[in-house]
Amino acid sequence: MPTPATTVAELMSRLRARKPLVHHITNMVVMNETANITLCAGALPVMAHAPEEVEEMVGAAGALVLNIGTLTKEQVESMLLAGSAANAKGIPIVLDPVGAGATRLRTESALRLLNDLKIAIVRGNIAEVAVLAGYEAKISGVESIGVAADAENVAKRMAEKFGCVAAITGKVDVVSDGKRVAKIANGHAMMGTVTGTGCMATAVTACYAAVEPDWLVAASSALAVYGLAGEVAASKAKGPGSFHVELYDALAGLTEEAVRPGARVEVSGS
Amino acid sequence: MPTPATTVAELMSRLRARKPLVHHITNMVVMNETANITLCAGALPVMAHAPEEVEEMVGAAGALVLNIGTLTKEQVESMLLAGSAANAKGIPIVLDPVGAGATRLRTESALRLLNDLKIAIVRGNIAEVAVLAGYEAKISGVESIGVAADAENVAKRMAEKFGCVAAITGKVDVVSDGKRVAKIANGHAMMGTVTGTGCMATAVTACYAAVEPDWLVAASSALAVYGLAGEVAASKAKGPGSFHVELYDALAGLTEEAVRPGARVEVSGS
Amino acid sequence: MPTPATTVAELMSRLRARKPLVHHITNMVVMNETANITLCAGALPVMAHAPEEVEEMVGAAGALVLNIGTLTKEQVESMLLAGSAANAKGIPIVLDPVGAGATRLRTESALRLLNDLKIAIVRGNIAEVAVLAGYEAKISGVESIGVAADAENVAKRMAEKFGCVAAITGKVDVVSDGKRVAKIANGHAMMGTVTGTGCMATAVTACYAAVEPDWLVAASSALAVYGLAGEVAASKAKGPGSFHVELYDALAGLTEEAVRPGARVEVSGS
Repeated sequence: MPTPATTVAELMSRLRARKPLVHHITNMVVMNETANITLCAGALPVMAHAPEEVEEMVGAAGALVLNIGTLTKEQVESMLLAGSAANAKGIPIVLDPVGAGATRLRTESALRLLNDLKIAIVRGNIAEVAVLAGYEAKISGVESIGVAADAENVAKRMAEKFGCVAAITGKVDVVSDGKRVAKIANGHAMMGTVTGTGCMATAVTACYAAVEPDWLVAASSALAVYGLAGEVAASKAKGPGSFHVELYDALAGLTEEAVRPGARVEVSGS
Repeated sequence: MPTPATTVAELMSRLRARKPLVHHITNMVVMNETANITLCAGALPVMAHAPEEVEEMVGAAGALVLNIGTLTKEQVESMLLAGSAANAKGIPIVLDPVGAGATRLRTESALRLLNDLKIAIVRGNIAEVAVLAGYEAKISGVESIGVAADAENVAKRMAEKFGCVAAITGKVDVVSDGKRVAKIANGHAMMGTVTGTGCMATAVTACYAAVEPDWLVAASSALAVYGLAGEVAASKAKGPGSFHVELYDALAGLTEEAVRPGARVEVSGS
Repeated sequence: MPTPATTVAELMSRLRARKPLVHHITNMVVMNETANITLCAGALPVMAHAPEEVEEMVGAAGALVLNIGTLTKEQVESMLLAGSAANAKGIPIVLDPVGAGATRLRTESALRLLNDLKIAIVRGNIAEVAVLAGYEAKISGVESIGVAADAENVAKRMAEKFGCVAAITGKVDVVSDGKRVAKIANGHAMMGTVTGTGCMATAVTACYAAVEPDWLVAASSALAVYGLAGEVAASKAKGPGSFHVELYDALAGLTEEAVRPGARVEVSGS
């Protein structure tokens, strides 16, 4: 990725041209919102979680999102069925381990998905990823409270441990495949005032993973575009409600001309 | 329906005056949105899916929506219970076969509902309805990709096959009871940029079916009013997010004065 | 509460300073919306309903919401598990008996929660609360149609019967602990045009219960602040869609300077 912002802009246009189907097995809080952000990113969402149909449905998809935000035991079984089918077909899986570390069920379910499936990208906050990578971390509900490591080290260790790309979102997003590290300085504090903006980041990441096989590039580009949309939305919003609405408009309306100077991605390592 | 636009306007006012209860057993992606569009249309929504209560709940309703967008086996059983109770009381059922043709579970579940219940109106995209009517159709996720027939023939055959009214939404909506065909030229391409706008069309159709026993007239009027609201919303929106917000405002704010010249409904056959 | 509006303003600031975690086990229609209103009120939402994790999750929370709007038997079991854990730790529970009186399942489930758990605050419309307090009431879906008693008597009897605070929302909200009665004259008719505004009132009430042990004061303050946000939103909205968006902006943007003259709370009794 020698000139990252150009890559980001090109990928955005590739995604919009190909319009891949993205299959989401996700939490009940953000189903509508992640479907809508998928449309705004340029892909087509389908939400399906019945064990009888997930293997068939994922076969048509370009990427699969697994999000444990309101997991149940039954839903984890559907995730394993869909994930195995995706792995067999080479369809990338993006995991959002919402609340890992907050309860045993969430930590164990996330680890089971990571161990039993080949996960392409894990997108979470630093505490969620740290817990799964083996660090001590403090989580309250689904909020990261404190982690005894920096995002770069956490992302690297996570990537090495599970052979995946780890994408940790925060003030600066950090993405690593264990060797390379990308830092994305886009985004806005208002994203923290709306529920599900992390889940939406995961959804957008899956859209990009559907059209770009270098998952570090896919995740970095997704987070740059999404963060840039957040910046545009924040410049127009009067509060959390209008920010939420503007975020969809901004992502759908981004142009290559805005992305090239706006995307702030730096990649190091090789 | 000799002067269709006048009928549409009168039905809109009748709906708002009667405020019927509309019971939805629907998918988890659009529960909030279809409840809100029901309110904006002028009816009162209730969402309930537990098998222990659906028969009792539907008894108070003027119409029942069955939407299989995130179906499970258990939910289909609740639909059959509610549907049988609705049939026994003469309460019209509006079926949205979301994703029929995309997976065997969806196709078979939709056919089971159509065979075991008396469905008043089926509202879907052309591929979903075509699959159920017996045509070949290509579906990716919940998007229609290609069908080897035109909407008029598909709607007619569907209506004849199941003794229902078939409402196929698209650039021009086509509604048929097997004999008459109504074409509704309202709507806007921005409706495709927001998830659940098809499900909302189904919800609005159910509102109208609760106050008009000629289901072809009910469905045509619903789609004209809803499509007109989409046109108004598109004229004010800056993107998918603001379009979504404007759609609710537009539907709630439509006047008879706007509907009479704006509704573009043509009926042929008899 | 000698100068109620000052208390309301102080509580609002206390809530924003402490940012308690509020655990919601709620209905599928309003999960996103109640999480967002929780954020706008100044607290942190977490939605979790799996029986394997609710006891652990609620342990970190400052309050627990139980909302039966789309209840199932399994969900009621999770509510009992979470509620027992909350009671053991002294974490206040706020119950929203959505649709109690509309079906036996809802009435019986609400009564079971009230009998088996120590509920701090019940927030409902007058018919829902009246049915649980032992009055005759008529309910269609989730709408109150008619009750043979006034809100003050219903709230008092409910409070006495279950040793809780009863908060009945309507044109004027009435809150009682059986001895004191608070009347809150904030709010706007547009709140009835958006689904889930009652559920949001419950969510905001739980936020305040997390930072104020006098539950009558907590509930009254929550409803004053939320109602005031509704008034601000209504002054800017063009319809139900924009009202919904403005409601989040208004609640998040309220200042003590606006609350002190705006909150209309009167308390009688002792």
